[in-house]
Amino acid sequence: MSEPFSFHLIATDGAARSGVINTAHGIVHTPAFMPVGTQASIKGVHHDDVRASGAEILLGNTYHLMLRPSAERIAALGGLHAFMRWPFPILTDSGGFQVMSLAPLRKITENGVTFRSHIDGAMVELSPERAVEVQNLLDSDIAMQLDECVRLPADGGEIERAMRLSLRWAERCKRAFEGAAPGRALFGIMQGGDDPALRIESARALVDIGFPGYAIGGLAVGETQEVMLQIVAEMAPALPADRPRYLMGVGTPSDLLQSIARGVDMFDCVMPTRNGRHGLAFTRFGPINIKNAHHAEDARPLDPESRCPAARDFSRAYLHHLFRSGEALGGTLLSIVNLYYYQDLMAGARAAIAAGRFADFVAETNEQWLARRDRLAAES
Amino acid sequence: MSEPFSFHLIATDGAARSGVINTAHGIVHTPAFMPVGTQASIKGVHHDDVRASGAEILLGNTYHLMLRPSAERIAALGGLHAFMRWPFPILTDSGGFQVMSLAPLRKITENGVTFRSHIDGAMVELSPERAVEVQNLLDSDIAMQLDECVRLPADGGEIERAMRLSLRWAERCKRAFEGAAPGRALFGIMQGGDDPALRIESARALVDIGFPGYAIGGLAVGETQEVMLQIVAEMAPALPADRPRYLMGVGTPSDLLQSIARGVDMFDCVMPTRNGRHGLAFTRFGPINIKNAHHAEDARPLDPESRCPAARDFSRAYLHHLFRSGEALGGTLLSIVNLYYYQDLMAGARAAIAAGRFADFVAETNEQWLARRDRLAAES
Repeated sequence: MSEPFSFHLIATDGAARSGVINTAHGIVHTPAFMPVGTQASIKGVHHDDVRASGAEILLGNTYHLMLRPSAERIAALGGLHAFMRWPFPILTDSGGFQVMSLAPLRKITENGVTFRSHIDGAMVELSPERAVEVQNLLDSDIAMQLDECVRLPADGGEIERAMRLSLRWAERCKRAFEGAAPGRALFGIMQGGDDPALRIESARALVDIGFPGYAIGGLAVGETQEVMLQIVAEMAPALPADRPRYLMGVGTPSDLLQSIARGVDMFDCVMPTRNGRHGLAFTRFGPINIKNAHHAEDARPLDPESRCPAARDFSRAYLHHLFRSGEALGGTLLSIVNLYYYQDLMAGARAAIAAGRFADFVAETNEQWLARRDRLAAES
Repeated sequence: MSEPFSFHLIATDGAARSGVINTAHGIVHTPAFMPVGTQASIKGVHHDDVRASGAEILLGNTYHLMLRPSAERIAALGGLHAFMRWPFPILTDSGGFQVMSLAPLRKITENGVTFRSHIDGAMVELSPERAVEVQNLLDSDIAMQLDECVRLPADGGEIERAMRLSLRWAERCKRAFEGAAPGRALFGIMQGGDDPALRIESARALVDIGFPGYAIGGLAVGETQEVMLQIVAEMAPALPADRPRYLMGVGTPSDLLQSIARGVDMFDCVMPTRNGRHGLAFTRFGPINIKNAHHAEDARPLDPESRCPAARDFSRAYLHHLFRSGEALGGTLLSIVNLYYYQDLMAGARAAIAAGRFADFVAETNEQWLARRDRLAAES
């Protein structure tokens, strides 16, 4: 019998929080960043490197996995942990976001969403009950309710309709999730676009339904950082302090720190790996575009003091060469560098919150990044 | 001051030999298989995994590296070992083979070869002296003479002309290499196509010039395995027993074992990584095409007793999924599996030669492969 799912706050510093999530597959320290394993693989990176970076939890994409290889096949192979050989916590999204962004054809009704698979063209139905069933088959530690995410900007009526539908789906998901193993949890997802009143209403209604954790969905979909942070700042106080808060699909290092400052505990984003594959490295000194010609003869590593071997051991000239030559190892190494960077940023945030100096930590991080930007400007 | 380059035989078993090569960057046990790091990277595989597979020496491609990032830049960055961070032995080819196979336009004269770069269209000259200079700049432990390699089948006059030109270039390369550090060596390359008499003449002339090692070039370029092995069998006795023999660009596991049985000590081939990227895994039980549908639900690893973590830890179903989903990790993992397989095959050959049972080792390896083929035939 697994331990029950739980969340405990360790320290707070203003609105910023650090804590621990317990799951059937181990603990997660928050603020936590979850690398995205879309198709049961963190693109181009071996699991051992993902783990070594400090990641304690991954995100798996329900939409992709239900279509290929299918939730039933993964269940037959022992669940997602065994299938991909990641014995640590996994969160799965509900599939709703990818249905909106990837499926070539989709129809939303009260019952759920019907869409055409982008892989084989088959029509697939995803109801709140099926979204839970799929995630039960995957055996993720944290499952997400099915929701409808509206791309911004959108008109108020559309945002409100999707928010209310998502609330009704939240109730159905909760019922469908009853009887799940106690080490697993289902999170509700707030919607409401960029309308603060709708957001607060969504939050309160979800809290009334009652979930062990709450996600802020429907952000990072086209709005400015300012709008996003405003929504986050207004929503967090509407949520119970003893439940983790997850800002979905976010974001840049700055997005993360600013959201932590407003009370967010969990994040996921493809940015570290996608940017890594495209030649952008995140470092303590800010972002470095390794494809730029001025790195071609630079024998220095990205960061000689990094905890990440790839950032420490290979010269910028070599990394530059790998990208210029189209060698896949370049994208892999920079993805690893960025995964370490994101995890170290979270570890730094946790330590700063514990020490009551989170604002200083944010200021110091920004200063190092700004110094780098100034240096780059001076160089060009 | 580095130790002088040397080769010592440890054991022989019939024509098969095992030995040790000493270089400025460490030792190489023979028979040795060299993974191919075309552009200073073993495609898709981290150097740490290449080393862990048991590889003691890599091959770097002079043609690719002289064009990008250029030998001069690599020299400025400390040589190829420092540039790619592989502190162990490296052999570089001369560039001749790739000029023939990759350059869109080329002209061969007595002086050398002029070709159009496939990267930027610039005209580039490669003479025997320049080939040595480039390899000196790269600071490889074993450099190769410039030669002209003729694709088979070819007419006898053409084969003979190229063979005699390669001999004259061998002499010029040897002169150009004088004064190189004693830990480094230049190998001569035999040519002569599929004509045994020309091959023997080439071998004897090269031995007269005198090299610390000899390569058999111009094979695995279109002829059958039978023809290749026949040439190898006839050439090896024409070579001094106290110098390593390197069969260039070969080959399949069977090619390697059969060539070792005929006195070859060194090999290089893209097969383990290229096949790995395309979904073909080499295992003790023979090749496995992981993309085949019958692996989709197979929870077994490729080989539970393998020394290679990727062969042991991931299910065939997961590897199949990675390939079906276009996840690069699949190609990386199978490349690693195959690099381990090739190194273990060489380690097995060395042990068998030392124990005087190389013929049994070849028979056992073939039996396991044949058993696998029979099983596959029974399955389908």
